[in-house]
Amino acid sequence: MTYDLIVIGAGPGGFDAAVEAAGFGLKVALIEKQFLGGTCLNRGCIPTKLWLGATSAIEELHNQAKMKVASGDVTVDFSSLQARTQKHLTGTRKAMAMQLKKLDIDLFEGFGKLAGDGQVEVRTSGDVKTLEYKNLVIATGSKPIFFPGLEPDGDCVLDSDMFLTMKTMPASLIVVGAGFIGLEMAQVAHRLGTKITVIDAMDRVAPLEDPEVSKTLRSVFKRWKWDVQLEKRVSGVKTVDNKVVLTFDSGEKIEADKALIAVGRGPVSADLGLEEAGIKLQFGQIQVNENLEAAPNIYAIGDANGHIQLAHAASHQAHYVASRVAGRIDTSYESGPVPSVLYGAPEVMRVGRLENEILLTDEECEVSRSQLAANPMAQAHAATQGFVKVIWSNGRIAGVTAVGHDVSRLTTPATIMVQQGWTIEDVHKTIFPHPSLDEALLNALKAEKVKAE
Amino acid sequence: MTYDLIVIGAGPGGFDAAVEAAGFGLKVALIEKQFLGGTCLNRGCIPTKLWLGATSAIEELHNQAKMKVASGDVTVDFSSLQARTQKHLTGTRKAMAMQLKKLDIDLFEGFGKLAGDGQVEVRTSGDVKTLEYKNLVIATGSKPIFFPGLEPDGDCVLDSDMFLTMKTMPASLIVVGAGFIGLEMAQVAHRLGTKITVIDAMDRVAPLEDPEVSKTLRSVFKRWKWDVQLEKRVSGVKTVDNKVVLTFDSGEKIEADKALIAVGRGPVSADLGLEEAGIKLQFGQIQVNENLEAAPNIYAIGDANGHIQLAHAASHQAHYVASRVAGRIDTSYESGPVPSVLYGAPEVMRVGRLENEILLTDEECEVSRSQLAANPMAQAHAATQGFVKVIWSNGRIAGVTAVGHDVSRLTTPATIMVQQGWTIEDVHKTIFPHPSLDEALLNALKAEKVKAE
Repeated sequence: MTYDLIVIGAGPGGFDAAVEAAGFGLKVALIEKQFLGGTCLNRGCIPTKLWLGATSAIEELHNQAKMKVASGDVTVDFSSLQARTQKHLTGTRKAMAMQLKKLDIDLFEGFGKLAGDGQVEVRTSGDVKTLEYKNLVIATGSKPIFFPGLEPDGDCVLDSDMFLTMKTMPASLIVVGAGFIGLEMAQVAHRLGTKITVIDAMDRVAPLEDPEVSKTLRSVFKRWKWDVQLEKRVSGVKTVDNKVVLTFDSGEKIEADKALIAVGRGPVSADLGLEEAGIKLQFGQIQVNENLEAAPNIYAIGDANGHIQLAHAASHQAHYVASRVAGRIDTSYESGPVPSVLYGAPEVMRVGRLENEILLTDEECEVSRSQLAANPMAQAHAATQGFVKVIWSNGRIAGVTAVGHDVSRLTTPATIMVQQGWTIEDVHKTIFPHPSLDEALLNALKAEKVKAE
Repeated sequence: MTYDLIVIGAGPGGFDAAVEAAGFGLKVALIEKQFLGGTCLNRGCIPTKLWLGATSAIEELHNQAKMKVASGDVTVDFSSLQARTQKHLTGTRKAMAMQLKKLDIDLFEGFGKLAGDGQVEVRTSGDVKTLEYKNLVIATGSKPIFFPGLEPDGDCVLDSDMFLTMKTMPASLIVVGAGFIGLEMAQVAHRLGTKITVIDAMDRVAPLEDPEVSKTLRSVFKRWKWDVQLEKRVSGVKTVDNKVVLTFDSGEKIEADKALIAVGRGPVSADLGLEEAGIKLQFGQIQVNENLEAAPNIYAIGDANGHIQLAHAASHQAHYVASRVAGRIDTSYESGPVPSVLYGAPEVMRVGRLENEILLTDEECEVSRSQLAANPMAQAHAATQGFVKVIWSNGRIAGVTAVGHDVSRLTTPATIMVQQGWTIEDVHKTIFPHPSLDEALLNALKAEKVKAE
């Protein structure tokens, strides 16, 4: 039998591609070397959100206690949380397997590899199967990357995968890398009482965000008494006597119970037989054309193609490829604006273009903004630090970013506005609910536009 | 001097009308008999949200404790909360007054009344001023209504105004009226340990919502051990020996420390000289034409015109009237879909048409839905009861309603979708962030459509 579609990798991209294609009536096989759900479910977004959710009462109480409105204490038992998390992941994987079965998708648990024209080899323990396809989707995802000297040892030096399977939360934690992954995990640890040190080689935290967002985060971390060390290069991290010793380039050393290395993620593309199939790689990223094809009838989606490392981007690409393979569309891929969110308290959201990016070009843009301090929902949660910032280009909304309490809820409306290129007249057509955090976006949209410079 | 615009009432509608008109360069006077911000700020939405926000850690802890992930206790000191609330309201009113001053809007603190052609009389203690206008906006809002025998006595029988200024929270509370106002306030009381009884003459709680929403709320209230008595008529409520005694039509009596009468709100339109000015009232509601005019150059907006009792609807009408008076538009008023939200845990949101409403007509509609149990953010907060329901008419989104954890965040995107009449293709153009509660909406949108019957 020749499959209409074989998918390698069952993360958000691969799983969705398989499910959508089967929904279109195609015969589909899905190959996964470890767990259904991939990084997002098992080692990324989902466990982190479960931990942030489970500890949110600690943060809420802390804020109200500062206002002398609430008192008490909340303790989260980390081993119970870890047990519940693992149970949740197992349950979700089971539900996913059932969905595959229902859709008559063949699941192969093993390592998939291209094996000549229209063929894929699946290697399980001791067994090799060869499958045939008309179309192939490579959705192998990404894995943590490391710089020399910063490799995790699984003892006290951890990558994000290891961090998420810890049995106990350390009393002190060094996080190397102030991106979203490191910051979300540090925040969970902080809520559980861990002393936090954050180190980055850049001059600001969350360096991909608007610089004002970085500044706000930095001030929050300062209030939390985090030790944030920026523009610092690390020459080595190792376990010594059941502790972590981190050495800076300067020779200075610091210690903690554990270190989390979160300096980035790179595509999983090695040993897949890609180059033999004429597929081009650059820094390990699978190069694709405007149809997300790496070679005729071979697509690469999600983290593996290096376009953007976000689960929802992978799912969106999956929908496109499934529709294309099913003969439902023949246009080239258009992602539209891809939003990104940092969860926790504060949250950060961003979609579309950033002011500082536009200012690097010759283009002109305008900026309008609002402060969360004026929002009743932020005030109700005693968390008023933050702002919403709207970027306008030729009178149309080109980007929105925000930092503060619950700003993730601005993401979907802002994504629609950027995608559709709303004018201020479009804003006035829509009734925002009152009171709501959403009104911080509305107020930013309605505020005076100032030329960015 | 003749004002371009005089506004009577400084709630969300009146205040916004004044501010927007002044922003358009008009000379504006604003008349307010009590407090800037009106019911919403002083006796409604805002204090309730402050109370729900301040007590949210109690609910979060409770949910995680049930999962055996968290333990501890959170106590909210009601007198501190009340003090903080009043301080917040005072501060907001001050900020509003400053905004008026900055925009050169004349504020008259007194009772405004129509006084013949183009004139308004403002009565303060002992003083009467006459002001002249080219345009007038009546934005006098609404106040609690009562049925005979259910009048508040300010002792143990309270209306919502009185409830929000209480000094202590009672140990037991009877809420008469299971609409949004009663349910939000009951929920705050519940979190603070009050024993709750809810009574309604209808056969379900939140009777304006989708019947399945009512059912879900009812089951949550049952879990909270609320005594919910439906299809019960109350013949009287009174204070007896510092307690409330409520008598049903059946003669049966129940007691509690306090009763909150929340059976509805009616327009404030008496003694304003409206009928003398040829303005028509129906059940106290100021009748307006398609331009929101009650008479030539006299507009009525917000709760007073009886269209819809929601602050954001009033603000939207205010924007229209200010634009019209400033000569910027001459089309008739179009509200677009007006969303409504019940806050707390669970939340309820609704925008556009409801299935049960459409089924009363000859029209056909389809329904698609998702369960919150499958959403990782709901799971992270251990609050998975609830659903999202989408109503489709001719292949376009005609309504969305949801109940459950944090579903208020679906309101703005759903409002845009209903307003624009999205098809499923429009849905696929938009990338929703993952993971997010918003995906419960996405999954409902993408789910199988079933013909409603």
